[in-house]
Amino acid sequence: MKFVRFLMKNTALANVPKHIDHFSKFSPSPLSIKQFLDFGSTNACEKTSFMFLRQELPVRLSNIMKEINLLPDRLLGTPSVQLVQSWYIQSLLDILEFYHRNPDDHSVLSGFTDALITIRNRHNDVVPTMAQGVIEYRESFLEDSITSQNVQYFLDRFYMSRISIRMLINQHNAYETAKLLCDQYYMDSPALEVDQYNAVNGSGPVHIVYVPSHLYHMLFELFKNAMRATVESHESSPRLPSIKVKVALGGEDVTIKMSDKGGGVPLSKIDRLFSYMYSTAPTPHLGSSRGTPLAGFGYGLPISRLYAKYFQGDLQLYSMEGYGTDAVIYLKALSKDSVERLPVYNKSAWRHYQHSHEADDWCVPSSDPKNLAVHTIQQ
Amino acid sequence: MKFVRFLMKNTALANVPKHIDHFSKFSPSPLSIKQFLDFGSTNACEKTSFMFLRQELPVRLSNIMKEINLLPDRLLGTPSVQLVQSWYIQSLLDILEFYHRNPDDHSVLSGFTDALITIRNRHNDVVPTMAQGVIEYRESFLEDSITSQNVQYFLDRFYMSRISIRMLINQHNAYETAKLLCDQYYMDSPALEVDQYNAVNGSGPVHIVYVPSHLYHMLFELFKNAMRATVESHESSPRLPSIKVKVALGGEDVTIKMSDKGGGVPLSKIDRLFSYMYSTAPTPHLGSSRGTPLAGFGYGLPISRLYAKYFQGDLQLYSMEGYGTDAVIYLKALSKDSVERLPVYNKSAWRHYQHSHEADDWCVPSSDPKNLAVHTIQQ
Repeated sequence: MKFVRFLMKNTALANVPKHIDHFSKFSPSPLSIKQFLDFGSTNACEKTSFMFLRQELPVRLSNIMKEINLLPDRLLGTPSVQLVQSWYIQSLLDILEFYHRNPDDHSVLSGFTDALITIRNRHNDVVPTMAQGVIEYRESFLEDSITSQNVQYFLDRFYMSRISIRMLINQHNAYETAKLLCDQYYMDSPALEVDQYNAVNGSGPVHIVYVPSHLYHMLFELFKNAMRATVESHESSPRLPSIKVKVALGGEDVTIKMSDKGGGVPLSKIDRLFSYMYSTAPTPHLGSSRGTPLAGFGYGLPISRLYAKYFQGDLQLYSMEGYGTDAVIYLKALSKDSVERLPVYNKSAWRHYQHSHEADDWCVPSSDPKNLAVHTIQQ
Repeated sequence: MKFVRFLMKNTALANVPKHIDHFSKFSPSPLSIKQFLDFGSTNACEKTSFMFLRQELPVRLSNIMKEINLLPDRLLGTPSVQLVQSWYIQSLLDILEFYHRNPDDHSVLSGFTDALITIRNRHNDVVPTMAQGVIEYRESFLEDSITSQNVQYFLDRFYMSRISIRMLINQHNAYETAKLLCDQYYMDSPALEVDQYNAVNGSGPVHIVYVPSHLYHMLFELFKNAMRATVESHESSPRLPSIKVKVALGGEDVTIKMSDKGGGVPLSKIDRLFSYMYSTAPTPHLGSSRGTPLAGFGYGLPISRLYAKYFQGDLQLYSMEGYGTDAVIYLKALSKDSVERLPVYNKSAWRHYQHSHEADDWCVPSSDPKNLAVHTIQQ
């Protein structure tokens, strides 16, 4: 019996590359917030959701698994990335179990919900585990800027894929209560100066339809950064300057701007704040990371930006070195415009991972004073 | 005699491709503002400047002439672009006249200065003429986004190259008075609310070392936009909200932020404000354009951004739709960091002009509600 299970497991594993090839040929289907809301409304149908997810989840998993395979061997080979890859393979197999099951059978539907919970829990530590892999890789090998760009490109797509998969799973599990997305978040906080500008409905308050946990994640990250910068830059001042939040509603965008007087960051350092490779936070211990999986990795800003981009928004930082920083979150004002942004594996994506050692198409300024009489022939 | 001159001219023209090939093999040599200042100081030497320019100007001209040749045939073939190209060829030949002349001969040096003035005047109308070519091309052919990207890529590099060439020419001609760059521009204007933050020298005023005409160009453009937006969005208001300017000096950056309450622009339209192809301004008449060569083309913002990037700075816009816009100019605080940003013709640049019809590596969201049961196989 044990041997049979062993055999079956190995047959299943042997078929994984075939499954990935098959499902990665499909392009993921982006949903709008409006569609998520409809799923959570009285018209929602567990069976429809089941039939959609048993196809869509393998498609999203396979598209990103193709890209995992394109990572540099020395990163792909780290124990951490191997572990993450094994989770993806197991979860793909778990869902494919339901591919030919009867959608009218209630035990199939409840078994599927249980499987999704198992998958969600299995993937809880993906971000810190992946980060651990990057740290091991970074410590063992000299980084070059091309590898760093590839890692940035991959992790943006990988984490975006993960956000979207967890969104689908949570939505399927929460559809009965229809609460996940119908919450409307009203921007107000007594500890901050908040101004609202409603250009659509006159002077009324600004209401936002958004995934509450995503919005919390972004605002928490920005508050944390603004407060830290303010406190650290005013250690010798008797009073801390306040953090100001402006919220504006236009016909297309909801914009949230948070302004601090925390001394700012030079322009040349801004990109690094969003970099996975250049994260300077100390290495946390993985064992204790379950409660706060992002703490310490310095991934707060890039992941927050992904949450904004996930529904076609953005998160941008504008700093004035010597003064302070503005952080701006852009969200779509209309739920029909809030459509998932999903990576797709294709030739363009593949090309990004092919190392290219081409010269820059702009002159690289040297820091040494140039000898005006000497020219060098370029490659 | 006429015939001999005709023959000589044609021989010279026949050699042009050879010259371009030769000089485009050299990479342009970026100078720092500090080096420009030194040229303008008492240590300046007209002979050194002459010897540098008779090599550097052909290098910069040839690097960008290589890229002009890569434009789409139907753009390259417009009378306007042909005219611009003929100016570049003539100016290259004019400078090469001095390539083997004796730098110790004063008449050679003064002849060179005269030639530079002729060249500068010849190229006065390059921007509106090139813009006219783009308009003709745009009107005759269906634009696609790849062509638009190529035109954007080319014009950013072409205009940056032009800025740098005119900077060299003006600097050579102005070197005696040493005034061109030594002017220090002090930010103040009674019509605006201006705040300064000096994080380097306590509470002193912020002094900026920069090319005055470039700084004027950028600030004028931003003021114009901010005022227009404010007036147009407050037509029914008794009072206009003020435009606020903040200037901050840090260890690395000088940052100038201009904030208006002119109603803002949606995020999706921001990129278009910097686009040469999507410029919506009406076509001006070329004949009357000599006084204000940029007026009406809508090139104000992209060219201003080039002026900022020319010395390793940047110009960014971030808007809150329904409220107002912040425009930020970043400059380097230290003149040794203000090094020219110059396009170089090489394989990477060449590759940009090769048409690529690859699919996007992110799913394109459709505006139609998706049928959740149907998937399409991607390419």
